[in-house]
Amino acid sequence: MRFVLTRIKTQMFRFEIIRQSTKSSARLGLIHTSHGTIKTPAFIFCATKANIKGLPIDYVKGSGTQVILSNAYHLMLQPGSGLIKRGGGLHSFLSWDGPIFTDSGGFQIFSLGHGSVSSEIKGTRFGDRRRTLLRVTEEGAEFRSYIDGRLIKLTPELSMQIQMDLNADIIVSMDECTPYHISKLYTANSMEKSKRWAMRSLTEIKKHGRFEEQALLAVIQGGVYRDLRQESAQFANDNDFPGFAIGGSLGKTKSEMYDVVAMTADMLDKQRYKHLLGIGGIEDIFEGVRSGIDTFDCVAPTRMARHGAALVKRRELSNQSQKIMNLNNSAYLEDFSPISESCRCYTCQTYSRAYIHHLLKAREVLAGGLISIHNIFTMNRLMSDIRSALELDRLEEMRSDWGRTNT
Amino acid sequence: MRFVLTRIKTQMFRFEIIRQSTKSSARLGLIHTSHGTIKTPAFIFCATKANIKGLPIDYVKGSGTQVILSNAYHLMLQPGSGLIKRGGGLHSFLSWDGPIFTDSGGFQIFSLGHGSVSSEIKGTRFGDRRRTLLRVTEEGAEFRSYIDGRLIKLTPELSMQIQMDLNADIIVSMDECTPYHISKLYTANSMEKSKRWAMRSLTEIKKHGRFEEQALLAVIQGGVYRDLRQESAQFANDNDFPGFAIGGSLGKTKSEMYDVVAMTADMLDKQRYKHLLGIGGIEDIFEGVRSGIDTFDCVAPTRMARHGAALVKRRELSNQSQKIMNLNNSAYLEDFSPISESCRCYTCQTYSRAYIHHLLKAREVLAGGLISIHNIFTMNRLMSDIRSALELDRLEEMRSDWGRTNT
Repeated sequence: MRFVLTRIKTQMFRFEIIRQSTKSSARLGLIHTSHGTIKTPAFIFCATKANIKGLPIDYVKGSGTQVILSNAYHLMLQPGSGLIKRGGGLHSFLSWDGPIFTDSGGFQIFSLGHGSVSSEIKGTRFGDRRRTLLRVTEEGAEFRSYIDGRLIKLTPELSMQIQMDLNADIIVSMDECTPYHISKLYTANSMEKSKRWAMRSLTEIKKHGRFEEQALLAVIQGGVYRDLRQESAQFANDNDFPGFAIGGSLGKTKSEMYDVVAMTADMLDKQRYKHLLGIGGIEDIFEGVRSGIDTFDCVAPTRMARHGAALVKRRELSNQSQKIMNLNNSAYLEDFSPISESCRCYTCQTYSRAYIHHLLKAREVLAGGLISIHNIFTMNRLMSDIRSALELDRLEEMRSDWGRTNT
Repeated sequence: MRFVLTRIKTQMFRFEIIRQSTKSSARLGLIHTSHGTIKTPAFIFCATKANIKGLPIDYVKGSGTQVILSNAYHLMLQPGSGLIKRGGGLHSFLSWDGPIFTDSGGFQIFSLGHGSVSSEIKGTRFGDRRRTLLRVTEEGAEFRSYIDGRLIKLTPELSMQIQMDLNADIIVSMDECTPYHISKLYTANSMEKSKRWAMRSLTEIKKHGRFEEQALLAVIQGGVYRDLRQESAQFANDNDFPGFAIGGSLGKTKSEMYDVVAMTADMLDKQRYKHLLGIGGIEDIFEGVRSGIDTFDCVAPTRMARHGAALVKRRELSNQSQKIMNLNNSAYLEDFSPISESCRCYTCQTYSRAYIHHLLKAREVLAGGLISIHNIFTMNRLMSDIRSALELDRLEEMRSDWGRTNT
């Protein structure tokens, strides 16, 4: 397979709306990239450190995956983006010939820096990880590598250079990612800084990169505040970013999150591509699609798999009071049926719940891999179902089949 | 795949010698079982707790594997052989429709009991694991489960019942596995006990099992002593075991091991199938094949893979003073070639040394899985090369191509 990936093929990035719903902001679209076309709405799976944990890439492809995401932050620290570039880019490195999305690295720096921003964004808890962020200036963010302790200053320009080295198809401007508990004033100042950083990112890729081919998304900040979101959106609309990534704090509750996402998406140029950063529960996806979000990324489907949780429709759970199928549960000890009778994934075609339960009890890593295959396949099936429903403009009608389930 | 495994198909176990070398005791053979035919000499891969660590079963098949081994000891404790039987047997449980080998459970009990018998057999070191063996009597061995501490008495009859539940194609009589440092008197008494236990195993399967179909191997004991090995072999020859498994202490050095194996194999009925328990370095295999061994099992190819070591021919190592390709080594940091240029395994067709080095450094479990695929493929290629050489009676001529390498 390696030799196939060395081919040179370029195509201008282009987002195309195939069908606009008449009932909501939902739309069916196509994202054309040098590494193929993504049918949207789509889910982007996290290959954080250049791999989806435990899975040979064939299983990622075989489960219907269109696009994966790697983290500039982790790859910058190890093995280094220069090394990946010298090896032919990230596609070749991890042997994936489809589209790749990378983030700017900013999120992880601030997440590790402040504790856990991720939890805060979702309004859950304040983490207590070791803080590695040293200083944020107008120029960029200084932090210590979690690998060897060396001092690194990440600037918008460096983030672009890293993402250009990696040669991802969709890339993200560096922003300051603020936690929920900060003041409106801090949020406003931070949003202004993120605008300046996005502008520097745009300048950098136009000067040194292939702007037409690597789509740079502007991160939309502003927390839960309408006026700040409006200002951030206006800035992005006024510049020639090919798309947008909604980031920053989305509030304390699910309901507040849906409102902030809908409000923000509504402020953005309807013709351009919109990504929602780091959110991907099944209900969240339905709400996001209704608001006009085209792609989602989230570690949940594979992370929960490693802890033994399988994504299934509510009606497939024997105990309706449960929210997920936790295969650690002794209810599955002697259950020789597949995770889902209706699922055509490799895992469901090959193994039983009892077998996976055994692997979990025996602490065998294969358990996480097998459930990941199922969860990836299931998320792709969900997105495919959503696209089919949008063809008929009947999103709400199919929602009850999937909705209110397990994430 | 699961539905395929529910078919009922039975065939009498039969070992057939296709060609006998004129230069040594080596022979080319076929082992016919209810789950297919094994071309010998063959390597048996360890699916200890009903899985080859990290690998979906397709990769085990796709790497040319003919037969796998699971441990009655681990499966008896978890999930229990009764559960596996109720689910349709071990083939169905782990979704493998080829031949399966199980051991008696004895080895692990004594290994955990005495410390580490495995290290002692290979003359390396004396382990210091927590001892769980409580008592060995004429009836059997009492030990505590490492999972829940419950008291278990494993008898030859119970070991047979477990292996009958699992429905493996090749099974092993329970023996007392003694460490190297014990006296000749203890070895003699223990060998006598193992004979009586083997006889009870034979009686048990004839009475309650399918003796014609599940091949019961007698374990040959007697340590390094010619007269004791002779007595153990004679007993096995005189009874209708379909094959033999050479076990027990094989001495302190590789050279002594080769002598003990050759001597013991030579005492056994030439027409019957011979397995060498737990030995599988490349040099060991060449020596074993010369002595008339038909199958080998060893955890090394997959265990070393999880630690980053890939099996390659010596000439494929850049540093000829090394013995193995340790992909943790920084020499591979920016090496974008595959593990082996000549290898057609999935890993070598898909990924570079640099990528696997990165995964090892990032402590990603995928590294172990990918190297396991390569090592399994390589061991199967080695055995296939050995069989091809035996077709032409030119084993020694091809040995230099593989010999004196890395295990």
